[in-house]
Amino acid sequence: MKIIVDAFGGDNAPSEIIKGCQQAVEEYDVDIILTGNRELIEKSAEENSVSLDRMSIVHTEGVITPDDESTYILKEKRDSSMGKGLELLKSGEGDAFVSAGNSGALLVGSSMIVKRIKGVKRAAFAPVMPKRNGCFMLADGGANVDVRADMLCQFGIMGSIYMEKVMGIKNPRVGLANVGTEEHKGGVLQNDAYRLLSGTNLNFVGNIEGRDVPGDACDVLVADGFSGNLILKTYEGAAIEIMARIKAIFGKNIKNKIAAAMIMGDLKGLAKEMDYHEYGGAPIIGISRPVFKAHGSSKARTMKNAIKLTKQFTQANVINEIEKNISIYKTENI
Amino acid sequence: MKIIVDAFGGDNAPSEIIKGCQQAVEEYDVDIILTGNRELIEKSAEENSVSLDRMSIVHTEGVITPDDESTYILKEKRDSSMGKGLELLKSGEGDAFVSAGNSGALLVGSSMIVKRIKGVKRAAFAPVMPKRNGCFMLADGGANVDVRADMLCQFGIMGSIYMEKVMGIKNPRVGLANVGTEEHKGGVLQNDAYRLLSGTNLNFVGNIEGRDVPGDACDVLVADGFSGNLILKTYEGAAIEIMARIKAIFGKNIKNKIAAAMIMGDLKGLAKEMDYHEYGGAPIIGISRPVFKAHGSSKARTMKNAIKLTKQFTQANVINEIEKNISIYKTENI
Repeated sequence: MKIIVDAFGGDNAPSEIIKGCQQAVEEYDVDIILTGNRELIEKSAEENSVSLDRMSIVHTEGVITPDDESTYILKEKRDSSMGKGLELLKSGEGDAFVSAGNSGALLVGSSMIVKRIKGVKRAAFAPVMPKRNGCFMLADGGANVDVRADMLCQFGIMGSIYMEKVMGIKNPRVGLANVGTEEHKGGVLQNDAYRLLSGTNLNFVGNIEGRDVPGDACDVLVADGFSGNLILKTYEGAAIEIMARIKAIFGKNIKNKIAAAMIMGDLKGLAKEMDYHEYGGAPIIGISRPVFKAHGSSKARTMKNAIKLTKQFTQANVINEIEKNISIYKTENI
Repeated sequence: MKIIVDAFGGDNAPSEIIKGCQQAVEEYDVDIILTGNRELIEKSAEENSVSLDRMSIVHTEGVITPDDESTYILKEKRDSSMGKGLELLKSGEGDAFVSAGNSGALLVGSSMIVKRIKGVKRAAFAPVMPKRNGCFMLADGGANVDVRADMLCQFGIMGSIYMEKVMGIKNPRVGLANVGTEEHKGGVLQNDAYRLLSGTNLNFVGNIEGRDVPGDACDVLVADGFSGNLILKTYEGAAIEIMARIKAIFGKNIKNKIAAAMIMGDLKGLAKEMDYHEYGGAPIIGISRPVFKAHGSSKARTMKNAIKLTKQFTQANVINEIEKNISIYKTENI
């Protein structure tokens, strides 16, 4: 499998990106196409003693910055490391694309250059996140601030297929993020989406309140991109803050340090479970070829995990399944 | 000070409510008017050895249930423990009202029976929540699913006054919940609210991402009620889940139990800081007299804390300040 990687996406590019690629090549038996400035990539590889074995470079000068308008990728910055990567994906020179760069640009570029799956109205940024006893997918985690109910319903369908095919969860429970569990809760958007989701063959478990998200309420949480992004980041922020405060307690004095040493193994396990870097980022679901958004703050380990998940995403044949099912599902009201 | 308390609001009414009232009478020097079925209140007091000293009862039969439509409080259930409490507040027989009952009904009842402050377009459910180095107010935490930008701006003004007057924070930092920090992020609602908030005399610090909410990003977080509720509850849920998992680690084996004993004091401090029961609930800001929503799952301690906060809310003269400032603030664009 050949995975295209944006060598200039994210806060720690290119050094951490190429380090992660090296690790992925070694651990997951993949070939890599790096997009970006060849000279800088080779220089960084040399400085960091990274072997570029099984990696090729497709040279391009430009870089999309976090502050760039999303649409720059279609014109002004079409020739950037991200734009070039998407072109290569479209033309079939690689099997999947990973970038830690500007999310908005990646979404626009994926939808407009690589194109959506036939029948899919909007692609979603769909991170897989930790919960009690495993993980769940949030769809949408921030791609679409304004959505219609039929789009939310499709997010549920696509998320369900991903969680079943990639994560191996049978008959995934699909829930709708809402301000209460009762059917009538929320606004018109939620009420319509509730009705549409109820009409599908999905295992729809109804409305899910924020409080139940980190527990084990559902395997796919459907939300508009605005509130979905706030759920995603508040959850991450709370986990980071609490773990930091526990760490501070453990370092406070000798007695606490001894206690910490005694339970270090178990605590590290919890920290790992709650660490979003383990999950590497988010697939963009609804695009006709696999595109994966790695965390903007990706370090080598996050990048390696992102490539692992992208490989699974590609192998599981999620996209064909979505194409087959997006119209078969009983969504006559859409 | 005389505080009216809905003796039949919440999951643990009336026993935990009246226990909390007794504790509040003893600790905070307040008188209480309980609304609800006199016989049941007196029976519960006897069974739980609760002294009703400094508490009077205003008898009424009905109770608003969590499943009741919010508007029942205006007609069908006007004579419920919550409806009666709001009537007593309106007529001046008590200084403030506390209920752990149906939030929607409390909001509708407060707005329609007690009435909003002149000039306030919508009242907000505004919980004070823990963050690094203290607490912040979330306005709105779930009262208004559909809002306009001018309402969001008013939430910022009211929240700022509350945090200054009640919580003693000078020149509170007001932030807008959004999917990115840049000015143009979010939808039309957020863009308009950003512009309006920038035009006030508030200490507006711009957009706040979910990830920064549990840190120390702002003292007042402005949000529409839908995403605000998801922020509130996801934060609570994450804290509950992580603390539960840490507790499980500490109980896992003898070695861990010993380690736990060594740092128990510090950990309890953290648990207390993160425990929403400490904060007791949320003031409903924008109403012409103090109304406080206690957590639906309130036990005696939560109720006691709710009454303490309600006393502070009432003494700080927040309502006069809001009335004076809601129109003086430079919000010519509203």
